[in-house]
Amino acid sequence: MNAEIIAIGSELLLGQISNTNAQFLSKQLANIGVNVYHHSVVGDNRARLIEIITQAQKRSNLIVVTGGLGPTKDDLTKETIAECVGRSLITDKEALINIEEYFKRRNRVMSENNRKQALVISGCTILPNDHGMAPGMALKENGVSYVLLPGPPKEMEPMFINYGLSFLVSQLEKTTKISSRVLNFFDIGESQLETELLDLIDNQTNPTIAPLAKDGEVTIRLTVKYENEKEGAALLDEIEGKILARVGEFFYGYDDTSLLKEVIKQLKDEGITIASAESLTGGLFSSEITKVSGASTIFKGGIVCYSNDSKQSILKVPDEIINEFGAVSSECAKALADNVKDLTGATIGISFTGVAGPNKLENKEVGTVYIGISVIGKKTIVYPLKLAGSREQIQSRSVKYGLYSLMKHFSKGGNIK
Amino acid sequence: MNAEIIAIGSELLLGQISNTNAQFLSKQLANIGVNVYHHSVVGDNRARLIEIITQAQKRSNLIVVTGGLGPTKDDLTKETIAECVGRSLITDKEALINIEEYFKRRNRVMSENNRKQALVISGCTILPNDHGMAPGMALKENGVSYVLLPGPPKEMEPMFINYGLSFLVSQLEKTTKISSRVLNFFDIGESQLETELLDLIDNQTNPTIAPLAKDGEVTIRLTVKYENEKEGAALLDEIEGKILARVGEFFYGYDDTSLLKEVIKQLKDEGITIASAESLTGGLFSSEITKVSGASTIFKGGIVCYSNDSKQSILKVPDEIINEFGAVSSECAKALADNVKDLTGATIGISFTGVAGPNKLENKEVGTVYIGISVIGKKTIVYPLKLAGSREQIQSRSVKYGLYSLMKHFSKGGNIK
Repeated sequence: MNAEIIAIGSELLLGQISNTNAQFLSKQLANIGVNVYHHSVVGDNRARLIEIITQAQKRSNLIVVTGGLGPTKDDLTKETIAECVGRSLITDKEALINIEEYFKRRNRVMSENNRKQALVISGCTILPNDHGMAPGMALKENGVSYVLLPGPPKEMEPMFINYGLSFLVSQLEKTTKISSRVLNFFDIGESQLETELLDLIDNQTNPTIAPLAKDGEVTIRLTVKYENEKEGAALLDEIEGKILARVGEFFYGYDDTSLLKEVIKQLKDEGITIASAESLTGGLFSSEITKVSGASTIFKGGIVCYSNDSKQSILKVPDEIINEFGAVSSECAKALADNVKDLTGATIGISFTGVAGPNKLENKEVGTVYIGISVIGKKTIVYPLKLAGSREQIQSRSVKYGLYSLMKHFSKGGNIK
Repeated sequence: MNAEIIAIGSELLLGQISNTNAQFLSKQLANIGVNVYHHSVVGDNRARLIEIITQAQKRSNLIVVTGGLGPTKDDLTKETIAECVGRSLITDKEALINIEEYFKRRNRVMSENNRKQALVISGCTILPNDHGMAPGMALKENGVSYVLLPGPPKEMEPMFINYGLSFLVSQLEKTTKISSRVLNFFDIGESQLETELLDLIDNQTNPTIAPLAKDGEVTIRLTVKYENEKEGAALLDEIEGKILARVGEFFYGYDDTSLLKEVIKQLKDEGITIASAESLTGGLFSSEITKVSGASTIFKGGIVCYSNDSKQSILKVPDEIINEFGAVSSECAKALADNVKDLTGATIGISFTGVAGPNKLENKEVGTVYIGISVIGKKTIVYPLKLAGSREQIQSRSVKYGLYSLMKHFSKGGNIK
């Protein structure tokens, strides 16, 4: 299957936004073995849209289109594609109900142009929009498959994953199958990882080995082609074994897990609770924890003690510590972790103090970070770090190191309880 | 001048990286009044590269190409474009010296394939590469201008700004200039905004009016073509006046501002401080505030009281409120805002309580949110909201509404102090 991805939207051509949809879809299509040969972007312009669709019909048998499904006059995608495949538009009742309910839930009056979003190409498979109003569509005509998706990534991505993929997989030939396994690593750089695995990467054939750096972490995607399931799994196991023999100490989980998911799972499994005291991270740790539904069973609460005032008044850090060692110190990290644990009655207290930048603090360099972990009945441990990057990177890397440090506590025989 | 931007690289089609170059170049070209009508991406493949260049020659008079100028075998850009314009490749002596020095400075042996990077299209203007080895090129043939740039943004962006722009400006007719102004709105949907402005949008010629929805906000980009500066500004002022007369109540700022920036600016200008008590937002508000350097002067601290325990133990919400009205209530929002203000000694306390989902809480619907704002010496106000979306969307929209509510406090005569 040869695919191309077409994005519609003048905002892309003006540079107001970046075409991240093309990247997301390319990755997804590569995962199921579909070759993407072209990306294109055109504006909300009927003539140019027809030109690009007509051209795509000649060279591809899968055309994925994003954008232009909205309610306004310049949204032309489905009208134009309907014309290119010789079909009409019809109102989908379920989509219309969904749109009406969307406005009711928000106590807002629905303007008439929103009805347009319920129009779909006749005979298509509807891809429900769980995060917005305009439904997506999938259809096949003259040997070419079309998938129409909304432009906003928050609507497009879950729609593609939850509904678009199964349509595509049903269109694929089933002779050789493809399967991937992702290994997640932390606290090792991409170039160091690649150096350790150089001979394996150079000699890769099946499975392929693709390292990728992302947000301070590195993943390795192993992709295998196979005819029977057992053989595929064995090939993946073999190469995984070789990789982990060399860099296993940095490995923390498979596929779409994350440090956050692993830590929350451990806390739930052990039935214990955590609380946080955050200075340089300003609430980012607690905000990450509470993105996960049901966090209230494991998260006792957090104090954002960004100012020295609040470290002393709310978390009772002794004056002597601030005066003698400063707020950016191992001693302060220990006091914060101990005291937030005691204040909230949690099993574990974690603290973050340091210099996010752009300026030095207490004459300490930007990137100086202390993470304290205090566990009931154990000796409090403080991890000193030197991090690099922008202010936001130092904040988010601190949170990742915090999660990673918690994981190390758990993995040492699960003796945290 | 009608332009298109072509990116070359299989890593884009595999989704390993995003085509941020196209966004950067689109913005740059829009600034000098060049219309970009197409973006394309193809892999390092000679046949497809010829196809895309030949097509571009027919419809555009400026073709900007990024990527494929490197030393390896799969870098084909300049060879293929030379072929498409009927010119040969020659070695540029200065570029070769630059490459040799690049290796000397790093104490590395230069492998032979690096010489290839000094080959340029004969008769072109060379665009020096101050951050890498491969030089860029600019040329004009048969009425079409070509600009060839390296793929890595760290090399491409300064090359384009420092050398590419002046080549392009020399090609432009100098009669009309172009200028943009962005108006930012909150608490109004894209479709409602468009309905209110329908006749203005339908009759737009100069300036043009382009609405864009983004992360729960809407922006309108006004773009004017003009011959003298005063006339351009007057045209923008006129259409802005008409727009704000209709939807001005939702307007909050110009160009690249944000609700966050506006609120922090107001707090600093008035010399007052804020503290937060966050339940459903779990620290997201404080985390946003502390992303901005220097937040410690205005942010007194935050309490993440995600569990009912912590609302009572740390923030002293009375049992009667929790028992009678629940944690998700106007009464609880008021107590949280009042008490976090008092606990921290801030001028303003803001609180967030509600149901982020996916499940109901206290038999209240997902998306039920209360935001409390308590100001020293004023009556505490609670804003009840019904929000839609996923858990993360409800959390982030709550924070935006919190910022927006703070702005409204300020804008009412700045009487918050």
